[in-house]
Amino acid sequence: MGKTLAFLGLGAMGWPMAGHLARRAGETGGHTLVWNRTREKAGAHAREFGSEAVELSGVAGADVVFTCLPTSAEVDGMLGELEGTLRPGTIWVDCTSGHPEAARRQAERLSERGVTFLDAPVSGGTAGARAGRLTVMVGGDAGALNAVRDDFAFAGTVVHVGGVGAGFAVKAVNNALLAVTLWATGEGLAALARGGVNLGAALEVINASSGRSNASQNLIGQRVLTREFPATFGLGLLAKDAGIAADVVRGAGASAPVLMQVEALTRAAATLIGPEVDHTAALRLIERMNAVELR
Amino acid sequence: MGKTLAFLGLGAMGWPMAGHLARRAGETGGHTLVWNRTREKAGAHAREFGSEAVELSGVAGADVVFTCLPTSAEVDGMLGELEGTLRPGTIWVDCTSGHPEAARRQAERLSERGVTFLDAPVSGGTAGARAGRLTVMVGGDAGALNAVRDDFAFAGTVVHVGGVGAGFAVKAVNNALLAVTLWATGEGLAALARGGVNLGAALEVINASSGRSNASQNLIGQRVLTREFPATFGLGLLAKDAGIAADVVRGAGASAPVLMQVEALTRAAATLIGPEVDHTAALRLIERMNAVELR
Amino acid sequence: MGKTLAFLGLGAMGWPMAGHLARRAGETGGHTLVWNRTREKAGAHAREFGSEAVELSGVAGADVVFTCLPTSAEVDGMLGELEGTLRPGTIWVDCTSGHPEAARRQAERLSERGVTFLDAPVSGGTAGARAGRLTVMVGGDAGALNAVRDDFAFAGTVVHVGGVGAGFAVKAVNNALLAVTLWATGEGLAALARGGVNLGAALEVINASSGRSNASQNLIGQRVLTREFPATFGLGLLAKDAGIAADVVRGAGASAPVLMQVEALTRAAATLIGPEVDHTAALRLIERMNAVELR
Amino acid sequence: MGKTLAFLGLGAMGWPMAGHLARRAGETGGHTLVWNRTREKAGAHAREFGSEAVELSGVAGADVVFTCLPTSAEVDGMLGELEGTLRPGTIWVDCTSGHPEAARRQAERLSERGVTFLDAPVSGGTAGARAGRLTVMVGGDAGALNAVRDDFAFAGTVVHVGGVGAGFAVKAVNNALLAVTLWATGEGLAALARGGVNLGAALEVINASSGRSNASQNLIGQRVLTREFPATFGLGLLAKDAGIAADVVRGAGASAPVLMQVEALTRAAATLIGPEVDHTAALRLIERMNAVELR
Repeated sequence: MGKTLAFLGLGAMGWPMAGHLARRAGETGGHTLVWNRTREKAGAHAREFGSEAVELSGVAGADVVFTCLPTSAEVDGMLGELEGTLRPGTIWVDCTSGHPEAARRQAERLSERGVTFLDAPVSGGTAGARAGRLTVMVGGDAGALNAVRDDFAFAGTVVHVGGVGAGFAVKAVNNALLAVTLWATGEGLAALARGGVNLGAALEVINASSGRSNASQNLIGQRVLTREFPATFGLGLLAKDAGIAADVVRGAGASAPVLMQVEALTRAAATLIGPEVDHTAALRLIERMNAVELR
Repeated sequence: MGKTLAFLGLGAMGWPMAGHLARRAGETGGHTLVWNRTREKAGAHAREFGSEAVELSGVAGADVVFTCLPTSAEVDGMLGELEGTLRPGTIWVDCTSGHPEAARRQAERLSERGVTFLDAPVSGGTAGARAGRLTVMVGGDAGALNAVRDDFAFAGTVVHVGGVGAGFAVKAVNNALLAVTLWATGEGLAALARGGVNLGAALEVINASSGRSNASQNLIGQRVLTREFPATFGLGLLAKDAGIAADVVRGAGASAPVLMQVEALTRAAATLIGPEVDHTAALRLIERMNAVELR
Repeated sequence: MGKTLAFLGLGAMGWPMAGHLARRAGETGGHTLVWNRTREKAGAHAREFGSEAVELSGVAGADVVFTCLPTSAEVDGMLGELEGTLRPGTIWVDCTSGHPEAARRQAERLSERGVTFLDAPVSGGTAGARAGRLTVMVGGDAGALNAVRDDFAFAGTVVHVGGVGAGFAVKAVNNALLAVTLWATGEGLAALARGGVNLGAALEVINASSGRSNASQNLIGQRVLTREFPATFGLGLLAKDAGIAADVVRGAGASAPVLMQVEALTRAAATLIGPEVDHTAALRLIERMNAVELR
Repeated sequence: MGKTLAFLGLGAMGWPMAGHLARRAGETGGHTLVWNRTREKAGAHAREFGSEAVELSGVAGADVVFTCLPTSAEVDGMLGELEGTLRPGTIWVDCTSGHPEAARRQAERLSERGVTFLDAPVSGGTAGARAGRLTVMVGGDAGALNAVRDDFAFAGTVVHVGGVGAGFAVKAVNNALLAVTLWATGEGLAALARGGVNLGAALEVINASSGRSNASQNLIGQRVLTREFPATFGLGLLAKDAGIAADVVRGAGASAPVLMQVEALTRAAATLIGPEVDHTAALRLIERMNAVELR
């Protein structure tokens, strides 16, 4: 088919995602352009996956532009550099965990150029990205999504969740629920620990019972009770996402006392424990609040 | 081996649990005595499972006494009627979702008679009870547990979690986490619904992502979004259990702001929506707080 | 001294505030121009206070423009109509309970015209406005404030609290604290009422003790326990202000779990009980949550 | 009239309270017996106020026994030592900030001896105690209160709030409201400080506005913004009282999300900052959560 896809932002997620685009392009006769702020990284990607490293000016002719950057602020910067060069009909797919308000602003700005913006954040972590099994939650025009759906070579599941910004909103709420389940399970274990209960046994029981969650099953046992806290997803980013969820709540005029409270506590943890540690280290604040160690 | 087991309380959980005891007794040459406040029920159980319906006085000679009642208050009543008749060496296994303080009081009282008390609440619902695959979390003497572990014919997993009361504490915390995940997921969906997001799609994404929980995967889609709210586990009982968890927190001198807040909200829901409805109908209060329907 | 002051927005607060400007102008030889969306009201004000009712075009030459409108959105509208006509050197004093972000945007827009914007919300209610004893909290340039401080004929106290938007931020936090004290006192009374305590006596004691607040001393006894709930300040407006405070918290990257929780509960009350009722009727939601009446 | 009053517990509050009893006895011809765990203190009190220092055995004949001890646990101890010696008709007035459940237990135990128990905690601090202007909130039999009301020489106001335990319940709720107002005002100031607002000016405005409270008017300016935190009422005691309020809420089956959350946060502060510091130092935890100093 000869479609040309550009991928901007070769971070921990973007690198393997763009790799899947290149692999697929090799099968279908398409082109995958890659760009990164650090040029060497793009060159290395080209050597490893057969993608083509380009300057920003080289992105202009792409049919689809993917971005995967830390926050919507970096996407704004990218958009400022590129918008004068994009062809009408281009579709911009932003896989950043961005802000719904930014999405609406960016979509409006691009639509003046005839470019369609889709917010398409992903879930599944670096493991899911390497396996090409990411879940993609997409906000924006359904027709535009259909036009690019087959290009999502990094995806296991693609779900259209609503209009522009809806993808970012769902991603923010999901991560806020991650924060809630982590924090609440930590509180429960801290109370049990103070009462002399064996935490490994308690967690085993909870994971076989109705209070279980991804956090209790896949994070707390492996990362907290082991005291390892391996830094894969930073606490500062979790606080940022919980904050976006708080903005989603505020923007919708909704009442969500638990999400708001946990946003505040997660933010406090990021301030007191530090933004760079693994997100599960939020429970270190619970430990301090309770003078107990979760092990 | 000829052990004699008594099972008191043939409710939705106790009926199939006692059934498994009787089945096992049939294989091992033991005896299963059953008692229920409503005598006819015990007779029906005997006819269906081959157990033996007895008066309370007939429980006296049992090696192991199982109870499965609504709250610790009913266990207190039972204990008052039986304690004078029990033989030293008897082990009392209470499968009620009881209160840790009651467990400590009851254990002390029974120990004066030479009877050992184990708190052994179960998880898995009526489906798990029928399948004989319940998870049992046990507090109390480890040696006593070992002496009766093989008698738990209704169990898939048996975990010793600590001293007397620890089983009830873990169960209460588990159910509090159920309340937290239900409520927080409801809040997130309410905010998304107000923003025009498709809830079925959002839930599908969350269930494939890091914010998922038993509540999001097995309850909200099936019971709330369908508007069915089938009453299997009452909202009043969930509020009771979240309250026990709050008492566990208070008793341990712990700080658990999220568990405490959700206990209050769940209690409010039980008051405003009613205690008899399914526990998932707590989300009807979130709907009223947000003037939105979750469908 | 012959200064010309314009006052836009003759609502429950603006009417007596502009009256004080006119009274002072009568003493100093100045002019007070008044404008209201409903023209008749401006005419009536002129007849009662000796102010001068004008068209919007007549505001152009004023030295100081006061606005007192429901929200920052109405101020935006006003600004759009007026900005082309204002003289450089004009000072715009906005007494609305507005949004700090709006203030920063409006200040920037006006500064391009050489007009200085001060956010100057007031506290003291209609009684304070009539008495000319309002507290004014001012954000913006200190020199500009000094130039107009003597023109605040409606004020008892004028306090400079920081840069542009700081006045609105302090006002929002104050009203959020009003929401907190109302709600928390209501919760305490509901618990006591369920325990059979005489609420009038309890409130008398609290008002003589360390837990007292303006809400406990001047609102709950007079408006809630009497069941009168006289509508002076609407619950919807309190929820709006608590929401602005939540935005202040978010904008500052702060962690404020209690303010965030109470914002959510106040919003829920405004949805469930209605936005038009008196703000003290938020406690009707607490009553429903507790199946008790506060009397 | 020759009544004999005994006062047990000559701490920071009890010392001046018993002093007022002695002063009044001097005027009316009554007797004031004083007892303290440290005997020298009772002797010193006798020398300073003309009271009579006694052994515990000397308390037996008193008409009224006052206790003012740290917690209900100490009152339990005292009661164990004295109950066999008290005459029927004696009235026991407990001015401790005690627990309502303890009050009910103690009242029942004493009633078997014909002794009436009144819970009568006080408010007003050491300054109010010295001035003889304390507020007393009394739970228990109204007739018994009338019989001793004139003996409360340390009181400015005496309010009967309900049955046994109601006095302690009201005191606990009052102190929980103190915790709420302290904490919430601290949160608001922290957010404003991060936004560059002058806190002294902000507090001045709040204290002239609707969000004011005893905490904002009499504590935060004098103790926090000055960085002095003079230790008059310990943070651990505030956490204890907020915890009693949480138990009052739980015991009444009430829903009080804000009181419960603030109890948890105050407890966390007592753990992280320390129980011995002044209660206003709870705001040091807010400072850490927000990386800002309140000055």
